[in-house]
Formats: sequence, C-alpha cells, structure tokens
Amino acid sequence: MKKIKIGILGYGNLGKGVESAIKDNVDMDLVAIFTRREPKNVKSVIGTQVLSINELEAFKDKIDVMIICGGSKNDLPVQTPKLAKMFNVIDSFDTHAKIWEHFKNVDKSATAGNKLALISCGWDPGVFSLVRLFSESILPNGKTYTFWGPGVSQGHSDAIRKVSGVQNGIQYTLPIEEAINRIRNGETPSFLTREMHKRDCYVSLKEDANPTEIAEKIKNMPYYFADYDTTVNFTTEEDIIAKRLKLPHGGFVIRTGKTGLNAESNQIIEYSLKLDSNPEFTASIILAYARALYKLFLSGEKGAKTVFDIPPILLTNKTNEELLKNLL
Amino acid sequence: MKKIKIGILGYGNLGKGVESAIKDNVDMDLVAIFTRREPKNVKSVIGTQVLSINELEAFKDKIDVMIICGGSKNDLPVQTPKLAKMFNVIDSFDTHAKIWEHFKNVDKSATAGNKLALISCGWDPGVFSLVRLFSESILPNGKTYTFWGPGVSQGHSDAIRKVSGVQNGIQYTLPIEEAINRIRNGETPSFLTREMHKRDCYVSLKEDANPTEIAEKIKNMPYYFADYDTTVNFTTEEDIIAKRLKLPHGGFVIRTGKTGLNAESNQIIEYSLKLDSNPEFTASIILAYARALYKLFLSGEKGAKTVFDIPPILLTNKTNEELLKNLL
Repeated sequence: MKKIKIGILGYGNLGKGVESAIKDNVDMDLVAIFTRREPKNVKSVIGTQVLSINELEAFKDKIDVMIICGGSKNDLPVQTPKLAKMFNVIDSFDTHAKIWEHFKNVDKSATAGNKLALISCGWDPGVFSLVRLFSESILPNGKTYTFWGPGVSQGHSDAIRKVSGVQNGIQYTLPIEEAINRIRNGETPSFLTREMHKRDCYVSLKEDANPTEIAEKIKNMPYYFADYDTTVNFTTEEDIIAKRLKLPHGGFVIRTGKTGLNAESNQIIEYSLKLDSNPEFTASIILAYARALYKLFLSGEKGAKTVFDIPPILLTNKTNEELLKNLL
Repeated sequence: MKKIKIGILGYGNLGKGVESAIKDNVDMDLVAIFTRREPKNVKSVIGTQVLSINELEAFKDKIDVMIICGGSKNDLPVQTPKLAKMFNVIDSFDTHAKIWEHFKNVDKSATAGNKLALISCGWDPGVFSLVRLFSESILPNGKTYTFWGPGVSQGHSDAIRKVSGVQNGIQYTLPIEEAINRIRNGETPSFLTREMHKRDCYVSLKEDANPTEIAEKIKNMPYYFADYDTTVNFTTEEDIIAKRLKLPHGGFVIRTGKTGLNAESNQIIEYSLKLDSNPEFTASIILAYARALYKLFLSGEKGAKTVFDIPPILLTNKTNEELLKNLL
C-alpha cells in the first residue's frame, strides 16, 4: 500500500501532536516539518527532518496532505489560502465568526490550484460541530447546548499573561455541573453566560505587582472574563510551569428534543470528550481527516470543504464489507 | 419549496413514530401508510390515508422515499429488495450478522431499478455505528465499548412471551454502571457478557403456571438470558400492559484511546442516548436520512448505501453558508 505523505507546517503544540500521532496511522508517512524559525534551532522530538518554510515549494509533489498548524488569529488566514494553491491542506481555523470568510478565501485558492482543502478541523469546530448538525437534524424540535472544559483555554491564558504585572498564568474553563444536570434531566433552560461556565486562573506575579489590582483587572476584562464568575489564584512561577506541561480539555454537546404526537417524549443526545491532551486529540482528528481528504482528492474533488462535506466512510481504510460485517 | 413525499410501509411502533415525526420536518409530506392488513381496520391516529400493500405500485411516481417499517427477521429481507426496484427506500434492518447479505441483495435491486436505498438506519445500527467509526478512526490506539439501556428490548420481551405458561412479559436491559465507570476512568477492561449488562424481566402468568419453573426457563434461555444476570419479577397483566405503553431506551458508545509519543495521554469519547421513546427516536433519525437520501438520489446516485456513505451536510436544509456561520 502506498502511504499518504504528510507534511507539517508549524511546530508548536499542535504540530508536535500531529508528529506523535503519525505512528498510530500506519498508512501515513511524515515527510518533513516546516518552520518559520531557523530550522537548526528546532529539534524534532523523534528526529523528523525540519526544514525552512522557504523550502515548501520544492515539496509540491512530495507531500499528499499538508497540515497547517498555525494560529487562527494571524497565521491561518494567510497561510491556508497561500498553501492551498500548492498542496492539499488541512487547518484547524477556530475563529467561529470568521470561518465563512476564511472558507471563501481558501476555496478560491484551492480551486485555482486544483487542490483540496479542509478548514476548521478539530473538535470544536469539528467533531462537536458534526454532533450539533446530526443532533438538530434528528431532533428538529429541540435545543442544543455546548459546554467546554474542564480544561485549559489557551486564549484565556494568553489574555492573563498580557496583564501588566503578571509574570505567567494559566486559565481553566469549568462547565457548571448544575447547568449540565438540568439539561440531562430534559429541561431546556435559557442560561446567562455565567450560568454555563466559570473560569479559574492561576497567576504568578512580577516583583512589586499588586495582587488585588491584578485580580480586579483580570476579572473585569471584557469578553474574556467579565461575563463569568472568575477566580484568580496566585501561585509560584514553578507551579504555573508545571501546570502548563499538561493541556487537558474536554466538553459536552447536549441536545434535548421532543418527539411524539403531542411532543410528549423527551429524547436526549449527549456527546462528551475527556482529554488528557487537547493538541494531541486535535491532531488525531486531523490525521483521520487527512486520509479522507486525500481519497476525496484522488476521486477528483477540488476546492474547500469542511467536516460537514466528508462521507464518514472515507475516514477509515476498512472496506465497506468489513464495516458492514463488524462495525455497523 | 417542493416537499419530499414520504410513504410508510407497516404501521407498528416504528411506522407510528415516523408518522408523528413528519410534523417536525417541514420539508416533508406524508402521502400514505401502506399495510398488509385490511386497510379499513387500520386507523391512523392523525388521519393519514391507509392503503393496502397491493396498491404500492400505483404510487411509484408519487412517493420520493418509502420508509419500510417491518421487522428484521421476516419482513425486511423480502420487502426492502422488492421495494427498492420501485422506490427510494430506507429500512432499519438490525440483524447485525446479516447486514452484509442484506446490503448486497438491496444493492442489486436498487441498482436494477435506478433507485437509491439506505439500509440499517436507526440508532444501532445507525448513529451508534457512526460514533464507533469516527471514534476508532480518530483514536486508532484504543478500544470501543457499546452499552445498551436502560430500556426495553423488544426481542427479549418477545422471547419471554414465547415461554409456555407466560401470559405477557416485558424485558429491561440495564447497563452495569460499574463497568461504564471503569471505562470512563480510562481503563480498557475485557468484560464477560454478564459484566456489561443485566436483564430485568416482568412477567404475568397464565392460570396454573409454575412461577419457579418459568423463572428457571427464562434465566437459562440460551443467547437471550443464559449469559446474563437475569431477574424475573412476577406481576399483574395490567402492570405489564401499562409498562408496554412506554418504550424507553438508550445506551452509550465509549471509546478510550491513547495518544502521545509514549501513549501517555488518555482520551475518552462518549456518546449517549436517553430516550423516552425508542421507536420515535429511530423514526426521527430515519426522516433526517430520508432528506439526505433524496438529495443524493437527485444528484444521480443509485444502489444501496449505509449511514457511513452519507455526507452529513445532506441531513439538513441549511445552506453551507448558514452552517459555517452559525453551527460549525
């Protein structure tokens, strides 16, 4: 069997997750990691070759699917459309408000380059989105709730670290169990933002920083913390560093719907993730979709896609006969 | 918008579920219920026209998707291949061991008739199968467990009622919470059959029946009960009748997998259903797939399919733009 040749652009947490997940996908080979940094300063943990982003073009015909592991804010809006002209690409663009714009840009590039691109692939957006789509299609008369956590939010951790006087910080998003239990019991409440999630921050301070002032600044930060019940805990730099070694996360999608002639039956669908490593899980999803994307490319498809477009059977190498005999 | 014209063959619990779910799918019209019984003896609860199965052929061009609501043992192996020559069809064939054979039969007929058929559509096989496929594709290094219940198993209830001396009976399948909790904690145990589920039976007796003898007969029935810890409770006919008015069910698919360079991260995916009405939920899934199937038919596809083949976006009428802006 000819293996699928994978490339990685960007060697942060997600890039490392993709690299370590390759071994669990026996039909894939990792060709190279590309970086904007000086390649000799980037050391792959398992000895994958690391090359400069400037060498990308030379690999145009040597990589079947390029996984773009940049950030959604500044990297992906530029990188994905650019690379989609040369490669089949997957990104995990997760700025929900800008997905449509990003899709159109990537679609234009991929179509022009006769390539196939999958955007916003991960667990949310991604697998959670699929559960939302399936659930509302199956139970049109109902309500869907998404909870995130318990887990580390990178965006909120970054926001804390930008507060002046803060040395280092990490933020845990916690779903509020009471809210989940009400939905599990078949209720369809309307929640305030603070009734679904709370936020726990661990912060180490620079010398002479004023803890009371900093706690207030964090708690009142609009959008990130102001709408939540936020706890700020002060701790040592060592503790934060230790905490940041692990990036657990997870969450829940729950839809409760009514069926029956008089809507007398409650039906509850719940999907949950409990992840020791958020980036490794996201990477694992991306590789399953890399397989699907490449097969779809070989069948002649072009342009931009999302997880909504992909027939599930393409995620596996099992034959239809195997699936129908053993898994369906 | 032209509505999708739905037909129902067979007016048991599932047929009634489909009928009541139509109102929640505003893009569908229910044309007729077809029955093997004398139509005038079958009364639709909401006044749908009921016709003899002998009139099916006259509706060849008047129905876009025919939902075949027969039993897997005797009805569907005959009905689905036969009807797939005339109609786009969906069934919920659930004899796992015979799905492949059924698929081939239906595929031949549907291809010959230039129609499209979806087999084994429901929650298991169906949505649970999708979760199993997604989960093992995402976490190749892991193990999947499926639990059913708490809920009524029709097959096991039927088996009880065939025991001589039994007047009436109903069987509840109960997943064993301890087993689920071990998996939720990241363990990957090998279970005996009796360690995953137990079975609770409620039985009313005919006159002169011997309860001790009947309890033993039930508990030792091979395949159905012998491998489980089974409880047999004797009760009144009225109690059984009351219990059989509700057909709750549910279950769990859980996959625990390992990721990371040294498989150091536990990742747990859990999907669960808590259903007041098993047939109404199955019917709701079938209608979402009826929409998808009809769109796929209009795009030129023919033959037999399963849920694995269907791009999720076809389940909804929302546009790609709406989905990417609001749901992804």
